[in-house]
Amino acid sequence: MSDEFELIRRYLAPLAAGAPGALDLEDDAALLAAPAGTELVLTADALVAGVHFLPDDPADLVARKLLRVNLSDLAAMGARPLGYLMTAAWPLPPDEAWVARFAAGLAEDQQTFGVALLGGDTTGTPGPLTLSLTAIGGVAPGRALKRATARAGESVYVSGSIGDGWLGLMASRGEGPPLSAEQRAYLIDRYRLPRPRLALGEALVEEGLASSAIDVSDGLAADLRHILEASGLAAVVEAAALPLSDAARAALSAEPALLAGLIGGGDDYEILFTAAPERAEEIEALSTRLDLPLTRIGRLAKGRGLAVLDATGNEISLEIKGWTHF
Amino acid sequence: MSDEFELIRRYLAPLAAGAPGALDLEDDAALLAAPAGTELVLTADALVAGVHFLPDDPADLVARKLLRVNLSDLAAMGARPLGYLMTAAWPLPPDEAWVARFAAGLAEDQQTFGVALLGGDTTGTPGPLTLSLTAIGGVAPGRALKRATARAGESVYVSGSIGDGWLGLMASRGEGPPLSAEQRAYLIDRYRLPRPRLALGEALVEEGLASSAIDVSDGLAADLRHILEASGLAAVVEAAALPLSDAARAALSAEPALLAGLIGGGDDYEILFTAAPERAEEIEALSTRLDLPLTRIGRLAKGRGLAVLDATGNEISLEIKGWTHF
Repeated sequence: MSDEFELIRRYLAPLAAGAPGALDLEDDAALLAAPAGTELVLTADALVAGVHFLPDDPADLVARKLLRVNLSDLAAMGARPLGYLMTAAWPLPPDEAWVARFAAGLAEDQQTFGVALLGGDTTGTPGPLTLSLTAIGGVAPGRALKRATARAGESVYVSGSIGDGWLGLMASRGEGPPLSAEQRAYLIDRYRLPRPRLALGEALVEEGLASSAIDVSDGLAADLRHILEASGLAAVVEAAALPLSDAARAALSAEPALLAGLIGGGDDYEILFTAAPERAEEIEALSTRLDLPLTRIGRLAKGRGLAVLDATGNEISLEIKGWTHF
Repeated sequence: MSDEFELIRRYLAPLAAGAPGALDLEDDAALLAAPAGTELVLTADALVAGVHFLPDDPADLVARKLLRVNLSDLAAMGARPLGYLMTAAWPLPPDEAWVARFAAGLAEDQQTFGVALLGGDTTGTPGPLTLSLTAIGGVAPGRALKRATARAGESVYVSGSIGDGWLGLMASRGEGPPLSAEQRAYLIDRYRLPRPRLALGEALVEEGLASSAIDVSDGLAADLRHILEASGLAAVVEAAALPLSDAARAALSAEPALLAGLIGGGDDYEILFTAAPERAEEIEALSTRLDLPLTRIGRLAKGRGLAVLDATGNEISLEIKGWTHF
């Protein structure tokens, strides 16, 4: 193993210190005692420099986004995170300051989310930095939230605010409507640093509130369509009900045509879930308890397809159907 | 999602058909019910085109090597494989014939090893094809084989034959000593297609035969040193005792200087393990039962360092200390 990999490993090894089963990353594999009566929830995502993040994006934010997009997938299933593995194909020689800041970002989020690095692999590549992370979570057996289990007549809810990720990407490129520096900073932060809604996912499972769930990574419309297709249902969403941040509201007021982008754009990492109408009060109480907006944006019906209606009841054309990373 | 990714996903989705918890790769994450009383064993390795395999290597063998190097890590801990996740950063547009053959290789090995694809991610990359695989296994709690638990006075064993991986890499480049076509084909196959010694790993755990274990990926010398360093011990290995294939024996007889390479070269994916001398008969019986050579090649002592002795008891210089991928 070259000294170049050694440098990277030196920065990554401390991330495993909190996990005895990681065996200091010195063994062939890591050990993890799954809590008794737990079903495992497993997800893996890759990020490629120049595809999912820009080479000059701050390294700590790249690291945290890598971890958080995977934790968001666990949140969407209602799972509690148990740990993660990571592989990195690194252009050599590595930029030590970048590696150090990358590791510091992971360390910070490990604290925040109570997880540790369990294992992985570092190798060199003649191509761009390519990161792959596998997150492992646990959920009570049979209780994981899925996409295919929504029912007609139920309400559609979404957490937090919608469209900030898409506006944040535009703002980070210097595009989009004129906004205050503060609003731009808010949106860019929302784009770069997803907030995986783990507490919400766990609470939805514990209280049996949601019939289905997904995280909003491809865009509200595309992800709701995933639930509709898997469950064999139609949905009507009221555009006026969509929860928007102050910054998104300012952007929309400057350029009303952005509405389709807010509904179609990705990278929000909120939780979209469905629930029976009679659970509305419990969901409101949960929203208060978590200090997280949970907004009813529409309802499910028999049939197929998604219709988004404006305030006068006319269907809005969703020009941006899904989300493709830049 | 572009049609180009869709093509890749179409070939990969059937690999999840055997795992109900993979949810047809359609959900945010996969579910896996860990067998009761199981400790999880987790490992992840990445392969990069041009670094770990050549662009013109057969796609099915690349896929199988990716899976097998991870299964070999599970074998070294004595774990039984439960499933795997994979991420792939793919140069676009994908070569459909290559993708199809890659998926066929995985399908074949899924049958062989009783595992299925549980989840993952596919993305495009401007760089080389970069594959990352996380394998999940299970072992009886507290019984996983580790590196740090060898004891002075014990015997050092290795499975199968040693040096074939290194000779196979040379043969695949048209280098190395003159050998018969059959011998070259045997060595190249050994290099390209590791045989993870899963049955051996599980048996060593069940029968409590091994005090420590590691798989020979970096090279016999380097991997034995890993055990020695972790356990705080020294070892003496008898070169004459090393198990060599007929092809390796022919190569060594043509070029005796290759010995250091056989001991130092990597990619054998055999299991190196240590055991108390009084277990010798049980190990011989296990070898017979598994139809797999298990050869005593040396012994552990107090102290530090590895000495490899020739037939006259003189120490052999190991010029190639470890193994760096080409």
